[in-house]
Amino acid sequence: MTEELLQKGHLAKEASRKLACIDTQTKNNALLKIAEALILHTEKILSANALDLQAAEEKGTRPAMLDRLKLTPERILAMADGVKKVVALPDPIGEITKAWDRPNGLKLSSVRVPIGVIAIIYEARPNVTVDAAALCLKSGNVTLLRGGSEAIHSNIALMEIMQEAAYAAGIPEGSLNLIADTARETAVELMKLNGIVDLLIPRGGAKLIQSVVQNATVPIIETAAGNCHVYVDSPCDTDMAVSIVTNAKVQRPSVCNAAETLLIHKEIAPVFLPEITKVLREKKVELRGCPLCRSIIPNIFPATEDDWETEYNDYILAVKIVENVSDAIAHINRYNTGHSEAIITTDDTHAEQFLNEVDAAAVYVNASTRFTDGFEFGFGAEIGISTQKIHARGPMGLEQLTSVKYLVRGTGQVRG
Amino acid sequence: MTEELLQKGHLAKEASRKLACIDTQTKNNALLKIAEALILHTEKILSANALDLQAAEEKGTRPAMLDRLKLTPERILAMADGVKKVVALPDPIGEITKAWDRPNGLKLSSVRVPIGVIAIIYEARPNVTVDAAALCLKSGNVTLLRGGSEAIHSNIALMEIMQEAAYAAGIPEGSLNLIADTARETAVELMKLNGIVDLLIPRGGAKLIQSVVQNATVPIIETAAGNCHVYVDSPCDTDMAVSIVTNAKVQRPSVCNAAETLLIHKEIAPVFLPEITKVLREKKVELRGCPLCRSIIPNIFPATEDDWETEYNDYILAVKIVENVSDAIAHINRYNTGHSEAIITTDDTHAEQFLNEVDAAAVYVNASTRFTDGFEFGFGAEIGISTQKIHARGPMGLEQLTSVKYLVRGTGQVRG
Repeated sequence: MTEELLQKGHLAKEASRKLACIDTQTKNNALLKIAEALILHTEKILSANALDLQAAEEKGTRPAMLDRLKLTPERILAMADGVKKVVALPDPIGEITKAWDRPNGLKLSSVRVPIGVIAIIYEARPNVTVDAAALCLKSGNVTLLRGGSEAIHSNIALMEIMQEAAYAAGIPEGSLNLIADTARETAVELMKLNGIVDLLIPRGGAKLIQSVVQNATVPIIETAAGNCHVYVDSPCDTDMAVSIVTNAKVQRPSVCNAAETLLIHKEIAPVFLPEITKVLREKKVELRGCPLCRSIIPNIFPATEDDWETEYNDYILAVKIVENVSDAIAHINRYNTGHSEAIITTDDTHAEQFLNEVDAAAVYVNASTRFTDGFEFGFGAEIGISTQKIHARGPMGLEQLTSVKYLVRGTGQVRG
Repeated sequence: MTEELLQKGHLAKEASRKLACIDTQTKNNALLKIAEALILHTEKILSANALDLQAAEEKGTRPAMLDRLKLTPERILAMADGVKKVVALPDPIGEITKAWDRPNGLKLSSVRVPIGVIAIIYEARPNVTVDAAALCLKSGNVTLLRGGSEAIHSNIALMEIMQEAAYAAGIPEGSLNLIADTARETAVELMKLNGIVDLLIPRGGAKLIQSVVQNATVPIIETAAGNCHVYVDSPCDTDMAVSIVTNAKVQRPSVCNAAETLLIHKEIAPVFLPEITKVLREKKVELRGCPLCRSIIPNIFPATEDDWETEYNDYILAVKIVENVSDAIAHINRYNTGHSEAIITTDDTHAEQFLNEVDAAAVYVNASTRFTDGFEFGFGAEIGISTQKIHARGPMGLEQLTSVKYLVRGTGQVRG
């Protein structure tokens, strides 16, 4: 175990007892001070970021990745604004979620408490450092952040600025932590820090998520793999179907709630497939279809088993013609990752069957899968989208960063 | 991967899609049929149990363990009664936990759904086979049970009887499963059955729990380790304190919510320690105390660091004299396992500080820790007591065996 991890871990655990008891006003004030400090120290952040960018350029990093890494005064302003928005959200801590009495006179209640120490392992984007710290602080959780090596100078600068501002504003020391050691082995040690880490959330690509699933012995929440489907039923409003399929595929193909497979009812396919093919090809989307699709439009690439399983995150869409809504549901439940699934239909019975039987975090009728998002759901924030079924499913806001504690008030009761 | 595990796993996953849509009446009727069948097939169960008992006796198993393994007509009746009680509990599935509209016209709701496939790894007691199956069935979850080798004949008989009764009553085949292969390697494979097992709950001793924590790659809920404390404050009602400490220690020392360490305020110790020592020694409890304790009662055994950490599950109690409530809280937060903690006090400020600052699933004022239990809390059932902070904390009833799904109804909305 590295010295840094062990030391920060123990201080984090200690701090978590104190932070759990800090009032909303102190937390909000600290968040405002953090927002101010980020803007005030723009120069420091940009200098650190320049070191990261230089190293990345020397390594021949792709322009898209460089752009994710790059900070500008505008982006720093946007991070600070993000922190201010967290101030405006209601504090979930201390909420009494239930209160009841027992026949023996015991008075029970369950109250929302922080989870404790939340570790987050993430990749290149330095804005996650600020986002995650703000959401955890507001929900009374201590953060133990481990960002990628590409952004290490930026992350250290951001963390120093946040720590200074927060601790001066009454937040217990040790509440905000960044693991500066970016070795892979250290990340694996963090995944096994039982007794200190109460929850680990990975934020990044499939490889990172898989490494966490395989290695972690602390509780985790799996996030973000999204093999999402849109099913165009018969009968449906085909104009609406074109609009939704196009939006779900091309509005932002790189994200987890973008559509990867289009399913089409066989009766509507002869009309709908040519129409959607024309629109998507204009948007530079490559289609890969089942044999039935290719009997309608021969120059569609053939789809293989792999295509049904793949989250392209790109301008590619797999297309399959299905018998009916039950067939569509069976395909989805076989291949999906439990993220977001949509049906386009004008038949209420089909809509209800789809809502009931599809196994996913979010199931849509006549709307784009792109809405699965903490902000679009109205949660005001998001630390990730859970694709597992325990603790939190779908977009995770502040409430999903809490646990409960049972308080029991008696007058001398003993068990008989 | 063993053939049996893979085959049952896949059928379980398929069945979980169907069982999720089965109505309450069908599930309740199946549970009643299971209860009837258990009684009807008492002879079959007892014959199978006799094989387990014989094997255990030949291996020289301790009488206490033999007793846990043994079934009698009365115990079978009690199991059947337990199943009938689950019928009377409200079905959590389908409950709309929240519904709201967004400014763009999307109508959102979150609805309770089953978790899916729940694996349970447990030790000798065959009644867990029936308990767990009944609770999972009522909450729409498919069970994948893996009991200990000691009870394998009993478990197979119980499972066959339950399957026959349930499937004849309309429960989808594959909803109730027992892994007959009791090899340790098979249990480890079950812990890594990602994509099939949605949640794994270990029920058993510390060794089993640790094996699951270390090996599992599927989501788990840690249960049942309980290093529980009672803190006797100054001022307090010392008669009440004697009654509660005695109850928490000796009413059933082998269980996870029994007290393991007694903390006493230094001002009350000279009076209280001799009093409680007398009572506990009459009950055959061995005390192990800090140096201050031994300065009051010299013939108390000295406590070591180990004693503060140990869950004895036996007639032993560690005793420590503390400065004040803050000192007691610090000791508890350092050594406890997050289960159940109690303060005995007549000072409301101390009580509130204890409730707020102690980090545990259940925190008590003037009552015994022994009440941390699904039945005592009024949940009507219990599948275990969670000592982790995500998904469920404390006693887990039917509600804790559910997940949520977001349903989103639109009229053609796309994201801008």
